[in-house]
Amino acid sequence: MQDSNSIGIVEPQIVRFDTPMHLKNGTVLDSYELVYETYGELNTARSNAVLVCHALSGNHHLAGFYPDNPKSGGWWNNMIGAGKSIDTQKFFVIGVNNLGGCHGSTGPASINAKTGKCYGPDFPVVTVEDWVQTQVRLADHLGIDQFAAVAGGSLGGMQALQWTLDFPDRVRHALVIAAAAKLTAQNIAFNDVARQAIITDQDFYGGDYYSHGVVPRRGLRLARMLGHITYLSDDAMAAKFGRELRNGSLAFGFDVEFEIESYLRYQGDKFADQFDANTYLLMTKALDYFDPAYQHNNDLSAAFRAAKANFLVLSFTTDWRFSPERSRAIVRALLDNELNVSYAEITSSHGHDSFLMEDRHYHRLVRAYMDSIVV
Amino acid sequence: MQDSNSIGIVEPQIVRFDTPMHLKNGTVLDSYELVYETYGELNTARSNAVLVCHALSGNHHLAGFYPDNPKSGGWWNNMIGAGKSIDTQKFFVIGVNNLGGCHGSTGPASINAKTGKCYGPDFPVVTVEDWVQTQVRLADHLGIDQFAAVAGGSLGGMQALQWTLDFPDRVRHALVIAAAAKLTAQNIAFNDVARQAIITDQDFYGGDYYSHGVVPRRGLRLARMLGHITYLSDDAMAAKFGRELRNGSLAFGFDVEFEIESYLRYQGDKFADQFDANTYLLMTKALDYFDPAYQHNNDLSAAFRAAKANFLVLSFTTDWRFSPERSRAIVRALLDNELNVSYAEITSSHGHDSFLMEDRHYHRLVRAYMDSIVV
Repeated sequence: MQDSNSIGIVEPQIVRFDTPMHLKNGTVLDSYELVYETYGELNTARSNAVLVCHALSGNHHLAGFYPDNPKSGGWWNNMIGAGKSIDTQKFFVIGVNNLGGCHGSTGPASINAKTGKCYGPDFPVVTVEDWVQTQVRLADHLGIDQFAAVAGGSLGGMQALQWTLDFPDRVRHALVIAAAAKLTAQNIAFNDVARQAIITDQDFYGGDYYSHGVVPRRGLRLARMLGHITYLSDDAMAAKFGRELRNGSLAFGFDVEFEIESYLRYQGDKFADQFDANTYLLMTKALDYFDPAYQHNNDLSAAFRAAKANFLVLSFTTDWRFSPERSRAIVRALLDNELNVSYAEITSSHGHDSFLMEDRHYHRLVRAYMDSIVV
Repeated sequence: MQDSNSIGIVEPQIVRFDTPMHLKNGTVLDSYELVYETYGELNTARSNAVLVCHALSGNHHLAGFYPDNPKSGGWWNNMIGAGKSIDTQKFFVIGVNNLGGCHGSTGPASINAKTGKCYGPDFPVVTVEDWVQTQVRLADHLGIDQFAAVAGGSLGGMQALQWTLDFPDRVRHALVIAAAAKLTAQNIAFNDVARQAIITDQDFYGGDYYSHGVVPRRGLRLARMLGHITYLSDDAMAAKFGRELRNGSLAFGFDVEFEIESYLRYQGDKFADQFDANTYLLMTKALDYFDPAYQHNNDLSAAFRAAKANFLVLSFTTDWRFSPERSRAIVRALLDNELNVSYAEITSSHGHDSFLMEDRHYHRLVRAYMDSIVV
């Protein structure tokens, strides 16, 4: 539903990069394309650009709608728009689909010019560091020397952190929402079960399912169902679904019985029709690998010595995937380096998914922070 | 490894029941067999019998070893034995494999006399109430009018609760460990993802995989991997595995990289070779269905009006599958009925699996409680 502050109709753009890029996995990517969308206007000083990085299942389409499709609102439409917390009347906002994605940027489902076939399993495992490198190239392409802000939630927040480490002069503010400085064993465990569900699906074909005209749908569906459980809070699931039965009585069978089963299966089915399985593997791998403290002997404070940006770090009380303690660890490391950091733990019942939701307290904090940014 | 207090060599027994049994799903099971093991001696007064009920992946083999197999220790070997917390020098302890199981009792893998083929998907969905009915028949078979105690952890604890509700005169003490009065939406969600992993495995064949000479191994493996994550505590996983790499460096691929991945895949593989997929479906269904308060308008206190037993209720701090709050809800309902209840929340890092572990505080509490039982 379009609101008066909505971006309105938008259209993505594609840029091609033909300069070879050295990836963290040791290989070179000769050329690639990135699809991106922009909202608002870049000012003359080119000082009002805000890069928004997406998370596991997100993409470049942050806000607004596509023609004739009222259900095509961007994933952060509630945050970005004219007069919204990330105000497109002030900022030039950019969303980009990361390398390896399945929404238009070069990824496993793209044709590899060298072979004439889909990259499939040959697509390199990419990291958050690689993504930031590609985002820098996009910034150069758009003539942006320095972002007023780089923002993101979850894996998007990790990219914002990486920007402050790798390109400290090119980002003035970092909004790091529902993120973490590294994944725990439990986080990795959930990701690996999701990956194994996809990889052991008989229709996976080692990642080359495109050649067989099939999709490892069962595995992708399971991965999404499992992901959803980790994105929701225990309390919210209890409040929204509880032990409610779909059909009013027990059926003593294995079809949908409880409402929560219906919901999860619906989410899984919808996702399996829309998302690429290889991309899912790559995105979870990037999550698992992100660990800026690692090369500093696991000292996160040491890792942030290079940073200069100002930070807004936000966590949500019921997020058990990336709990508030994960954000506090980031904040401590930033404070150890005497960086400017604003931090809040927002009371929310929506678990990890909170960063995508409308929440008065949350949106006011972001608005206030963005309002304080000088462009 | 055999310890001096071990039961030593044991052997299971089978009893056949030919009296038709009316199940909660509305069908009748004409006949079935139960495999069970006993430890210790039944006294003359038949007043020292203790029934131990197994959980999702457990069975009748509680303690002791099978001949020539030093790795065949029962799942509660650390709890049951001569001089152990459940002392077989005092008690006659019985373990039974529940109906629907895959360790010798009639279940989906058993031959249905009517068809000459495995029951497979035709095996009825059984409930905790059904199991207690079969356990009563076993008690009758053994000439036991009243159990000194019925004990169990997790799903086993639910059976102990059910005993006190359905046969209040036939159980003097109930040990209810790491249990819950009903599953939450999140609990059901995890079970349903596990079931869907099995059911959507191409080798499941609607449950009739026996006819095809295959096993839905991939799905069963995923189910176990997922289950394991829920049985372990976040902290214990972090302490035991952290972000340790199996091979010392990142490989930028999808084979095992992190130690936690290696561990989970190993557990999954091991389980998939040993457990029946249909049984897994049935066990998780029984977990989902258990809800004694339901027919009392969700009033657990009202549900326990019928109970007369004495209770020991135990929970573990890091159990996030059945958290201590679940046990406290049970305790409150028992206290509302002025029943004798001893309760302790035991500090443990082992999560839901704690009920299977050796823990000094835990085992002392059980020992003290069992010692206080008059036989």
